[in-house]
Amino acid sequence: MDRDQLRRLLEAVQRGEAPVDDALEALARPRFTDVPDARVDTHRALRAGIPEVVYAAGKTPTQIVEIARALQAVDQNVLVTRIEPDVASEVCARLQGASYDEVARLLWLGPMDVPPTGKGTIAVISAGTSDLPVVAEAVGVAHRFGNKVEAVGDVGVAGLHRLLAASDVLRSARVLIVVAGMEGALPSVVGGLVDKPVIAVPTSVGYGAAFGGIAALLGMLNSCASNVTVVNIDNGFGAAYVATLINRL
Amino acid sequence: MDRDQLRRLLEAVQRGEAPVDDALEALARPRFTDVPDARVDTHRALRAGIPEVVYAAGKTPTQIVEIARALQAVDQNVLVTRIEPDVASEVCARLQGASYDEVARLLWLGPMDVPPTGKGTIAVISAGTSDLPVVAEAVGVAHRFGNKVEAVGDVGVAGLHRLLAASDVLRSARVLIVVAGMEGALPSVVGGLVDKPVIAVPTSVGYGAAFGGIAALLGMLNSCASNVTVVNIDNGFGAAYVATLINRL
Amino acid sequence: MDRDQLRRLLEAVQRGEAPVDDALEALARPRFTDVPDARVDTHRALRAGIPEVVYAAGKTPTQIVEIARALQAVDQNVLVTRIEPDVASEVCARLQGASYDEVARLLWLGPMDVPPTGKGTIAVISAGTSDLPVVAEAVGVAHRFGNKVEAVGDVGVAGLHRLLAASDVLRSARVLIVVAGMEGALPSVVGGLVDKPVIAVPTSVGYGAAFGGIAALLGMLNSCASNVTVVNIDNGFGAAYVATLINRL
Amino acid sequence: MDRDQLRRLLEAVQRGEAPVDDALEALARPRFTDVPDARVDTHRALRAGIPEVVYAAGKTPTQIVEIARALQAVDQNVLVTRIEPDVASEVCARLQGASYDEVARLLWLGPMDVPPTGKGTIAVISAGTSDLPVVAEAVGVAHRFGNKVEAVGDVGVAGLHRLLAASDVLRSARVLIVVAGMEGALPSVVGGLVDKPVIAVPTSVGYGAAFGGIAALLGMLNSCASNVTVVNIDNGFGAAYVATLINRL
Amino acid sequence: MDRDQLRRLLEAVQRGEAPVDDALEALARPRFTDVPDARVDTHRALRAGIPEVVYAAGKTPTQIVEIARALQAVDQNVLVTRIEPDVASEVCARLQGASYDEVARLLWLGPMDVPPTGKGTIAVISAGTSDLPVVAEAVGVAHRFGNKVEAVGDVGVAGLHRLLAASDVLRSARVLIVVAGMEGALPSVVGGLVDKPVIAVPTSVGYGAAFGGIAALLGMLNSCASNVTVVNIDNGFGAAYVATLINRL
Amino acid sequence: MDRDQLRRLLEAVQRGEAPVDDALEALARPRFTDVPDARVDTHRALRAGIPEVVYAAGKTPTQIVEIARALQAVDQNVLVTRIEPDVASEVCARLQGASYDEVARLLWLGPMDVPPTGKGTIAVISAGTSDLPVVAEAVGVAHRFGNKVEAVGDVGVAGLHRLLAASDVLRSARVLIVVAGMEGALPSVVGGLVDKPVIAVPTSVGYGAAFGGIAALLGMLNSCASNVTVVNIDNGFGAAYVATLINRL
Amino acid sequence: MDRDQLRRLLEAVQRGEAPVDDALEALARPRFTDVPDARVDTHRALRAGIPEVVYAAGKTPTQIVEIARALQAVDQNVLVTRIEPDVASEVCARLQGASYDEVARLLWLGPMDVPPTGKGTIAVISAGTSDLPVVAEAVGVAHRFGNKVEAVGDVGVAGLHRLLAASDVLRSARVLIVVAGMEGALPSVVGGLVDKPVIAVPTSVGYGAAFGGIAALLGMLNSCASNVTVVNIDNGFGAAYVATLINRL
Amino acid sequence: MDRDQLRRLLEAVQRGEAPVDDALEALARPRFTDVPDARVDTHRALRAGIPEVVYAAGKTPTQIVEIARALQAVDQNVLVTRIEPDVASEVCARLQGASYDEVARLLWLGPMDVPPTGKGTIAVISAGTSDLPVVAEAVGVAHRFGNKVEAVGDVGVAGLHRLLAASDVLRSARVLIVVAGMEGALPSVVGGLVDKPVIAVPTSVGYGAAFGGIAALLGMLNSCASNVTVVNIDNGFGAAYVATLINRL
Repeated sequence: MDRDQLRRLLEAVQRGEAPVDDALEALARPRFTDVPDARVDTHRALRAGIPEVVYAAGKTPTQIVEIARALQAVDQNVLVTRIEPDVASEVCARLQGASYDEVARLLWLGPMDVPPTGKGTIAVISAGTSDLPVVAEAVGVAHRFGNKVEAVGDVGVAGLHRLLAASDVLRSARVLIVVAGMEGALPSVVGGLVDKPVIAVPTSVGYGAAFGGIAALLGMLNSCASNVTVVNIDNGFGAAYVATLINRL
Repeated sequence: MDRDQLRRLLEAVQRGEAPVDDALEALARPRFTDVPDARVDTHRALRAGIPEVVYAAGKTPTQIVEIARALQAVDQNVLVTRIEPDVASEVCARLQGASYDEVARLLWLGPMDVPPTGKGTIAVISAGTSDLPVVAEAVGVAHRFGNKVEAVGDVGVAGLHRLLAASDVLRSARVLIVVAGMEGALPSVVGGLVDKPVIAVPTSVGYGAAFGGIAALLGMLNSCASNVTVVNIDNGFGAAYVATLINRL
Repeated sequence: MDRDQLRRLLEAVQRGEAPVDDALEALARPRFTDVPDARVDTHRALRAGIPEVVYAAGKTPTQIVEIARALQAVDQNVLVTRIEPDVASEVCARLQGASYDEVARLLWLGPMDVPPTGKGTIAVISAGTSDLPVVAEAVGVAHRFGNKVEAVGDVGVAGLHRLLAASDVLRSARVLIVVAGMEGALPSVVGGLVDKPVIAVPTSVGYGAAFGGIAALLGMLNSCASNVTVVNIDNGFGAAYVATLINRL
Repeated sequence: MDRDQLRRLLEAVQRGEAPVDDALEALARPRFTDVPDARVDTHRALRAGIPEVVYAAGKTPTQIVEIARALQAVDQNVLVTRIEPDVASEVCARLQGASYDEVARLLWLGPMDVPPTGKGTIAVISAGTSDLPVVAEAVGVAHRFGNKVEAVGDVGVAGLHRLLAASDVLRSARVLIVVAGMEGALPSVVGGLVDKPVIAVPTSVGYGAAFGGIAALLGMLNSCASNVTVVNIDNGFGAAYVATLINRL
Repeated sequence: MDRDQLRRLLEAVQRGEAPVDDALEALARPRFTDVPDARVDTHRALRAGIPEVVYAAGKTPTQIVEIARALQAVDQNVLVTRIEPDVASEVCARLQGASYDEVARLLWLGPMDVPPTGKGTIAVISAGTSDLPVVAEAVGVAHRFGNKVEAVGDVGVAGLHRLLAASDVLRSARVLIVVAGMEGALPSVVGGLVDKPVIAVPTSVGYGAAFGGIAALLGMLNSCASNVTVVNIDNGFGAAYVATLINRL
Repeated sequence: MDRDQLRRLLEAVQRGEAPVDDALEALARPRFTDVPDARVDTHRALRAGIPEVVYAAGKTPTQIVEIARALQAVDQNVLVTRIEPDVASEVCARLQGASYDEVARLLWLGPMDVPPTGKGTIAVISAGTSDLPVVAEAVGVAHRFGNKVEAVGDVGVAGLHRLLAASDVLRSARVLIVVAGMEGALPSVVGGLVDKPVIAVPTSVGYGAAFGGIAALLGMLNSCASNVTVVNIDNGFGAAYVATLINRL
Repeated sequence: MDRDQLRRLLEAVQRGEAPVDDALEALARPRFTDVPDARVDTHRALRAGIPEVVYAAGKTPTQIVEIARALQAVDQNVLVTRIEPDVASEVCARLQGASYDEVARLLWLGPMDVPPTGKGTIAVISAGTSDLPVVAEAVGVAHRFGNKVEAVGDVGVAGLHRLLAASDVLRSARVLIVVAGMEGALPSVVGGLVDKPVIAVPTSVGYGAAFGGIAALLGMLNSCASNVTVVNIDNGFGAAYVATLINRL
Repeated sequence: MDRDQLRRLLEAVQRGEAPVDDALEALARPRFTDVPDARVDTHRALRAGIPEVVYAAGKTPTQIVEIARALQAVDQNVLVTRIEPDVASEVCARLQGASYDEVARLLWLGPMDVPPTGKGTIAVISAGTSDLPVVAEAVGVAHRFGNKVEAVGDVGVAGLHRLLAASDVLRSARVLIVVAGMEGALPSVVGGLVDKPVIAVPTSVGYGAAFGGIAALLGMLNSCASNVTVVNIDNGFGAAYVATLINRL
């Protein structure tokens, strides 16, 4: 139950449309559910605005299924991130209605069309084709969380005209996610062109002294554009999560 | 000239209150001004929503004064960060109306009461007394940029009841800045309690394996709370800058 | 022979129940046994209170079997850690009575019910489901070393109410092991809630700037809770070992 | 008020010797006290067994004095760590009864003779003369927290006979603190000789590839002796804190 | 004696204008000169095209003077880098004709007007005012080595229009030196705009995760612009040295 | 279209040999082409002197084919780097005329004999046989970009006579690429022997403290030979790219 | 041809037993031999006392065979290190007389019994069973280079009595190689017990904060025993090489 | 008492020249002496061949004097390393006969002419003038330990002819110490020219990516010359110590 659901329930009680006992039962639900190997935070939607999301890395299919069922039991959509194809395949076989996006490594159990709760557009700008999986995660998550998204790809700083051609997208977004590997310079350049918050996502794209994304991460933390904040390497999910909260303001 | 000033100018032209020639002159100003050793970005207020801010580290008093005058010449407020007392003293002597906050290391040249442009409150939560200079920078910058700020200090995670006693502040803020050194755990705990974006600022407080803020920085980048983004170590300024843009949405 | 066995032997001699010659032979055993590729420290149980434990990584099944037999030859239980399923399978086939726990990667050759020598309970608290293998190692080792254990899992700091619901376990433990990856904040929060020693175990759970457990390790070393000490990344064994010694005091 | 004080108060109430109103007032005290720049955790003695300790680095004399007074106001002893001579001098001038140990950088405001609460002896073993300040901090803190301490210095592993000559101290301690810089090998050697928990303190002693204590820290984290846990570089305070809790068991 | 001097000498011999004995003496000079504490490479001008340059850091004034005199003795200009004001002052007092540039930390003993040997212009582009000392070193060295230099400063990527306004300088240079601290993104952007080699110089400007220039260094090594090579942090000298060799081609 | 092609087109227009309409169409081509997942920089040949090169790592065969076709559509040669055999095989099957060099991991779609545009020779010097793949990449790229190349391999500094035997190659080159792993000392030694720019390529050859090329990278960045600049670890491509630009001067 | 062979040849010439023409031919051999992909340093035996050794990592079987044949052609024994079983198998099939040691990853082409040239014994001391491959490399190389070797294994510092039981071996060696992973403390302890040079070999044995041997490496570099020098991680070969040179003195 | 002294004593007893009681007293001396803050290893000369050396960093003048007196009391020479001028001055004032070398930071209390115990010459080769303090330490220590030393300075690899001019020194040494900062390439080049052990000493000379000697250290650990072992950064003392032991063989 998230804040909107709670509000609707209380209004129904107020209007006499919901029996008090039903409301009581709904409200008396515990704030977490214990399944084997996990204590599912069923209270998170109400407290944090977004239900608990399942991080699949290091989890078995059975663990994921059990957590998902605990979330479904309290009427929440289920989003699973970082789930590899073979695990996803097993989970999908056991959870009716689950869909899987292999590039983004996202599994979803909820309505295909999420009603928009974001007030504007989230732009997802990326430097190179190799950053695509991270972009796909960010775009997929933002969609699932009820945002309109515009993505502009392969506009690395070594060919500025490609980026400048997307000025309209940049200037019209309410919040921007900028994804880049290697030297991670794109957020600084994008940041200098807009007056909105920029969430920078370093990727592990590159080799040698890219050090699996450290070069990009450091570049973004030291951005000379002041409107840039940073999330973990390859963390498209986190960027979309924060962008969602900002877009709801 | 920022967007509001520009809008007002164009409206005055529309109403016939501003002569076209005056407007022309104002609009024809170059987008940067060259002074010795600097090319001041006078276009930034219009493009980025906030005028160029002067980072004082590594600059001489003369360089700072010249940049400040270039900004004043185009009717912009001047904010200088990371300015040490001796440099600030020399700058204040040469720039009439400048005020200096030694704890925050901020120098300001503009109206004492900045009209609020932020829609809600920015909460600045910090872990320990030693983080105070970074907190002061964040609070000072947020004030200068037209925000209402509420600060809660010394609520490190080893005594949770101190933090929980500030729940009202946490829940009512529109965006939160969380400042912590050492293990940098506070943003995760705060992030778990709210449904708003949290900007985490690692500080260089600590010793030994704190590595001048690296431990806190890594902790924040790996936060298990998904609503956390991160800025550079000790970068209270950057956190307040982004919080300002978010608070204007 | 550990200290209890030695004490019983000497008391039996004192009471005249054990022939001096038998005691002599037992006491005259060398303090180590050479097998191919290893010099087994058979004196460790007496000196350190716990027999030598076999670290399987980098060892062949044959080497493990030979060391185990050398320990059995002096009447000691055999615990093997970090042993992969295929190696364990080969070792079990050659050592009668060996049992294997695949999640914990522990192989055991001794009585199923170890008589308790710990005076209280060891609590094993962990942040997420993905930390389970390390938790299992800590729990398994603590059991084999004669402790009562209570485990509370998936109580990461982003949902504090899950942890606070386990207050009874936290407050009643004589020593606590806290296992966490990513930002590793849990030991600080747990440490702030109890007046007992907390042994923090960073795990390699996470990605990107988690750097295989470095982020969690640094966080724990810099804990603002003063009752926290730290062991190596993923070292559930070491944590249980020290907790055992503490629990015997 | 710590747990013993609380117990005595409740027993006095039980016996009718303490008026209920007085007890009420004492028990109704808030769990923290706000002073400028700090929120003092006055509840910590009751919750954690040891009152809040003041970490002086980065704090002004005034801030330290205010925190100290807030602790005194609730009848707690005050221990300040990492306090430099000039700051200590100013604090001592303003806090009657304060004493300062320059080598250990400890300031103390409480009875000179702390009644022993530890059940046995804490041994503090150190590798070299240059480690003395960290040793002094550990010894001083352990004394202030009510422990009997035995210190053995300059017994680095390059001259084993010096260490072995202290076997009695090693074997009779209930818990051991081992302090070493450079390669940090001493905890492993000591750990192999005893059946008690060893708390290893890496120091920043050394040069070049000692990297300010990193070499020693890594050595200790990877100790082949399983009874070793580790605290932060130069953290003699933390080691003594945990040793105190263990020694009370 | 550099290659030009040698050529002239041989031509003079050829023309009968230089006595063979004089030429013999000049050519028979040893290829190095031993002074106390140094073995001066007097052969370098001939072999490498540029005489040995003196790196002053860690050298005493006396050592610098002796090396300078050894170079003068074989008719070479003397350039000293990284020389602090107090050392320079003492050296200037002892070496007639020496001039010192404090911002660039360069000392020069040679003609004020060096005849140009470079075929085109070296452009020195820099990101911020704080990078000035490194820029000054690069510009000063390039001048002393006989190049025409054009410098464009304070054109960091957060305000692209400032850089684009210098397109003419960028496009007309034969080789470019790009100096930047913090995230070090400028070389990538400049590199994408030109078809000439770009030598990137990371600077130690920045704080926190700038790590004294590491962030900029990594950024430049991972540049997505393929025409970028990199020199050491703050190494304006090295950049100018290589640019000189390129400009002579 | 690169600068030479553009020049020929304009000259043909000038001479009346090319119809204005044809020229117009050619010149009006957009400066980039969007294909799925990529925005191909078709303007780069004109702007940077060399067409966009495709970095294959992280790209699917389909993505590579689409980018290649977009480049072919504007009459540009296609060079693909870092392409693994299985991917290359699939790409070759779909792109007529593509050839693949497995050691260099280069795929080429263009004339076998590229007309020379470099004015002199590029020497490629390498330390050991294990560096061969990086050498092959550098040599292959330099050839494709129109340079004459001379390669000297296995002349590591532990057997100087092997290197000195190649003096003629070293001294006659216009620009040198020096490839080395392990301690990366070769560029310093080569640099000291020539008066031309040296581009150093660290390789990931080595083990242990070679740290995947970090040791070599740091060695090269700190070269005591001033004519050395550095590219990323294993970046034979980048070295050849810059050497090409220099060789055209 | 090494120094002994050369001496014998010259003596034979002196005695008139060797025709001058034969000697001439032998002495006129070039100092290196070019094979495809390698320039074999055939002069090394004479110059360095030990022939060139082939480092197999990154080399193909064909490359190894060609280098080996070039060495054989000048009458030198061939030692190949770091050669994996599948590569060794192919090489052995093509080089008659080659023998392979899989644990040590050494391939040898020379007499089984190398005449001793070392004057005393090399002791190889190691900490744990998992270090065996590195030990085997050191022992195997030392044998092939003509030394008497005594190996003592599994004597880690956590059970000192195991090491002290080998005092005779330690004290009678002329030079010692000490191999250890994890915290790498063994060289310090051994170093303190002997008056001979100790060559420390860190191994990559361990996990977590062992960082693939960095912890052991740093420990050894900071050894408080002054008679310790260090080679690269897992470099058993290098240790045996230097020990050989020392043992010949 | 070192081994020679012990041997002479026993021979005197054998010859009847030394009374048994005197010998007894000398031999019964304890193997360490406790002074305040130190446990002096007076047995080291006998066990390790060289008396304990005092590392002054972090020690007070009083501590140094006390340790020195404890060593003098058992007839040992006293060598103090890393002693700063002000400390040395105070120590010299209190210890008659002490002499101080400021460049080497060595204090000596013993005969000016130490009888030679080394069999050959130790060569100390160094790269640059700035390495002089480390060279001086190595040379000074080697002299005090009874070796003949030949030093060749400023022969960095960028001017190979300077090094090759010292071939005689290189080839005639029995063991070589090679000192270098920056890229640390000199030991590889020297190592390739000789058939004796080379002890490499990285120095902290350099800036930027030299990282205080890390670049040189890594270079030396990865040397392609197999006769190189390494000591800690700036550890001239350790190099001379090991060279002494080797030179005595």
